[in-house]
Amino acid sequence: MARNLGLSAGLTLDARADEPLYRQLFDQLAGRIRSGTFPPGFRLPPSRSLADALGANRNTVVRAYQDLELAGFVHSTVGRGTFVAEAAARAGEADPRATPAAGLPWGSLLARAVDSEPLARAERIAASVRSTAAINLNRMQPPTDLIPADLFKRCIDHTLRTQGARALGYAPRQGLPRLQALVAEDLRRQGVPATGDEIVITTGSQQALDLAVRMLVNPGDPFLVDDTTYPGALSLIAAAGARLVGVPRDAEGPDPAALERHARVGAKGFYLMPNNQNPTGARISAARRQALCAWSRRAQVPLIEDDYAADLELEGDGPPPALRALDGDVIFFGTFSKKLIPALRIGFLLCPRALVARLTVLRHAMDLGASALLQHALAEFIERGYLKAHLGRIVPIYRRRRDVLAAALERHLPAGIAVARPASGLTLWVPLPEGVEAERVFEEAQREGVLVSPGTVNGVDPRRRSGVRLTFCSEPEERLVEGARRLGRVLGGLLPRRGSPSRTRRTEESAAIEGV
Amino acid sequence: MARNLGLSAGLTLDARADEPLYRQLFDQLAGRIRSGTFPPGFRLPPSRSLADALGANRNTVVRAYQDLELAGFVHSTVGRGTFVAEAAARAGEADPRATPAAGLPWGSLLARAVDSEPLARAERIAASVRSTAAINLNRMQPPTDLIPADLFKRCIDHTLRTQGARALGYAPRQGLPRLQALVAEDLRRQGVPATGDEIVITTGSQQALDLAVRMLVNPGDPFLVDDTTYPGALSLIAAAGARLVGVPRDAEGPDPAALERHARVGAKGFYLMPNNQNPTGARISAARRQALCAWSRRAQVPLIEDDYAADLELEGDGPPPALRALDGDVIFFGTFSKKLIPALRIGFLLCPRALVARLTVLRHAMDLGASALLQHALAEFIERGYLKAHLGRIVPIYRRRRDVLAAALERHLPAGIAVARPASGLTLWVPLPEGVEAERVFEEAQREGVLVSPGTVNGVDPRRRSGVRLTFCSEPEERLVEGARRLGRVLGGLLPRRGSPSRTRRTEESAAIEGV
Repeated sequence: MARNLGLSAGLTLDARADEPLYRQLFDQLAGRIRSGTFPPGFRLPPSRSLADALGANRNTVVRAYQDLELAGFVHSTVGRGTFVAEAAARAGEADPRATPAAGLPWGSLLARAVDSEPLARAERIAASVRSTAAINLNRMQPPTDLIPADLFKRCIDHTLRTQGARALGYAPRQGLPRLQALVAEDLRRQGVPATGDEIVITTGSQQALDLAVRMLVNPGDPFLVDDTTYPGALSLIAAAGARLVGVPRDAEGPDPAALERHARVGAKGFYLMPNNQNPTGARISAARRQALCAWSRRAQVPLIEDDYAADLELEGDGPPPALRALDGDVIFFGTFSKKLIPALRIGFLLCPRALVARLTVLRHAMDLGASALLQHALAEFIERGYLKAHLGRIVPIYRRRRDVLAAALERHLPAGIAVARPASGLTLWVPLPEGVEAERVFEEAQREGVLVSPGTVNGVDPRRRSGVRLTFCSEPEERLVEGARRLGRVLGGLLPRRGSPSRTRRTEESAAIEGV
Repeated sequence: MARNLGLSAGLTLDARADEPLYRQLFDQLAGRIRSGTFPPGFRLPPSRSLADALGANRNTVVRAYQDLELAGFVHSTVGRGTFVAEAAARAGEADPRATPAAGLPWGSLLARAVDSEPLARAERIAASVRSTAAINLNRMQPPTDLIPADLFKRCIDHTLRTQGARALGYAPRQGLPRLQALVAEDLRRQGVPATGDEIVITTGSQQALDLAVRMLVNPGDPFLVDDTTYPGALSLIAAAGARLVGVPRDAEGPDPAALERHARVGAKGFYLMPNNQNPTGARISAARRQALCAWSRRAQVPLIEDDYAADLELEGDGPPPALRALDGDVIFFGTFSKKLIPALRIGFLLCPRALVARLTVLRHAMDLGASALLQHALAEFIERGYLKAHLGRIVPIYRRRRDVLAAALERHLPAGIAVARPASGLTLWVPLPEGVEAERVFEEAQREGVLVSPGTVNGVDPRRRSGVRLTFCSEPEERLVEGARRLGRVLGGLLPRRGSPSRTRRTEESAAIEGV
């Protein structure tokens, strides 16, 4: 179908392609100019000659030349012709090395909250992950082969085909009504009463948490969290200037005695992940959920409920009723990043009715809304039933990966380290015995080609006895097994030997491991 | 090409379409189930019969049925068949009206900053805009016919075709390196020294401002702004708990005497839009820019430079050098929402070198990053030269619209109201004479079918004598003229009459206008 004419420097027009011919020509000429094949000063053939050579209409060539001129690739002079632009664009270019002088005393200008320990900790750990070919038991996102790129592309295509540029403006402040309604419908299916007008669409659930925290915190206010929790929450709550207060847990959830102690400190909220605690994978029992809601009303502390792992149910009949199903003042949020596509950057917040208007204003002020295009495409994806089908396909894969990793850990970890299988989600928690530091494990494992997440990032108090978190979502089964084997070797090497002083031991082990 | 078989309830498979046949079948069956054409309990034809009737492979039907079951549309029992699911999904549905009890004393729980006046004002004005067919001189975004939806679609297609699911994960914390490099290159072209590693990609420039403000403000800190400024900035700076301090302007920019007075108050920043002040359209002179940078170092107050209207140059040879070109400690940011596509939700911040790591950590904590897919697609759009070509096409249109609106205002506004033509951007500012309130103009104009933005939203002090802001970007020329005509009528009616007490006058005018 394509014509290829030597006369025209290998330019090729395909009349059957979707793209208009002038655009094909533009792209090819622009490519040759960028690559230097047509250098500055090079004269393009007269439009008529090129049109003849290509067997194209002259208007096609004229339009392409016009666009090239608008884009600054060429300039044309009547009577002389069209020339590849001199380094004109570059003439006005600033020298990137010529950064102008700077001398503000930033140390004394920065906000206290941003200088707080959890943010510095996040920065330090992020910087110490060296990107490698390591077995990645740290990445908490669907692997590329479990992301339905083709189906999603179809939903974007459909959106742009049917709505065109109307899908490319700003979205309504509270979110796309169609998506709000679908989210509410899905929540009702899960037993959470919700209507679309109580839903605020956010840029991921991370922003939903930020929104809730900013809504509530005056600097210095106490804010309750599990004593081992999601580092992104520690960062945001600290950045709002709150004082983090860690609440210990028992087998059923947050410890009631500790909650009673904290009932009168004036906490502005309690951040929880009832169905799948990140990092431990623990789930709060039905009875404790009731008790938490009763406590929240008595103590007048709002509950912030993060259901990031919704629909990733690996076991049993699903979780007990959500806190929000028990209490309409619970601030509930969720995301499509874990169960579907991180690049959507779409989450949602189910507001207490009294706060809808205020949360909408603050949310809108934060970034003017999540992408309308992606909101449309996601709504299409859900309405077509693709999301449910996708979950039906991926959940069994994650279940198998969880089981494979758990079994391999049982086989390879030193005796006495027990790993529980979570009922949902994408992570396993390896509690560490006394005397083994999580960051040490992280470092040694990285040396062995395995990335794990050290519990240091999770602790309100980073020095607390801890563990490491492993994800089983983003590596295939054989690499999960190999990861467990290597982690077993690392932990075996780090376990304190009876009677040997720990200082000496570490140095020995470290040398031994470097020699492996 | 398409086969349509009566036997199979009008199901149609098209072997030439891009979509696989099983997926076409899935979509059509799901549609019939959703619409109730196939009601709960309805038995789908056996896969073999349907395959025969459609002339399709049996595997096609089996795969479609499997996906329908995964998606919860049908259930199948061996030996009995495949049935449309009973209201099974709906059985577990919560009653949306059954919102559980709620009783927290939110009034005493909310953060002070979120309760601040600028946010309440934004909420009040937003609520008073009634969506109508009004002539919209308020909307500050490219109109749908000037958004290059087709070209953008091609860039998304290209990204998904070449990168597939790799473009759908989380983006790197600081942004896509390819996009960072392109943004830096474009800044250098504008004379601003920049390298990719100083660029942080943000979710629009709104988030860049939020980031800068949160980085700097402890509650109670003074923060300088133009005394008439962008309301989104007032909201964010107030939400951070800062005390807003308005700086008056003269013809060249912020008033030097006022700046000297504020040099010692310990302000944490000065927010500026040097090239196109929103709402007034004013531009800071080259000399005043030099003076501002010198003042910033002397007073130790960081300058926050918002270049939201970059590349929308309507006049002359472009603006004087950016503040950031004069001082490497200026926090500079920009966006692709105004010049290209709002739904990208992509902006950027050019950091002072000393703050790159910290800004990256805080930015990442805020929403885990802008969509990787949209970052890829935007980079593609820029690299292909589409952005420059697009600007070459739209800028003359905006220039004409500005001139048409300005000329119509000259003709229709009461004598004595002078409207200046801005050198860039998308807005015109109509200063109001003594005794005419901006919100009154907004209300009356809305009644006449014209939406404008009242200067009330722009003032640090909302009671200050003010104006109304008109955008000329989002309506065609004839509607701009008609909008000016109606606005002239409104203003003519509201102008104080010599000698008549203003109270009486207003009531009269109001009645007269309602009768129009």
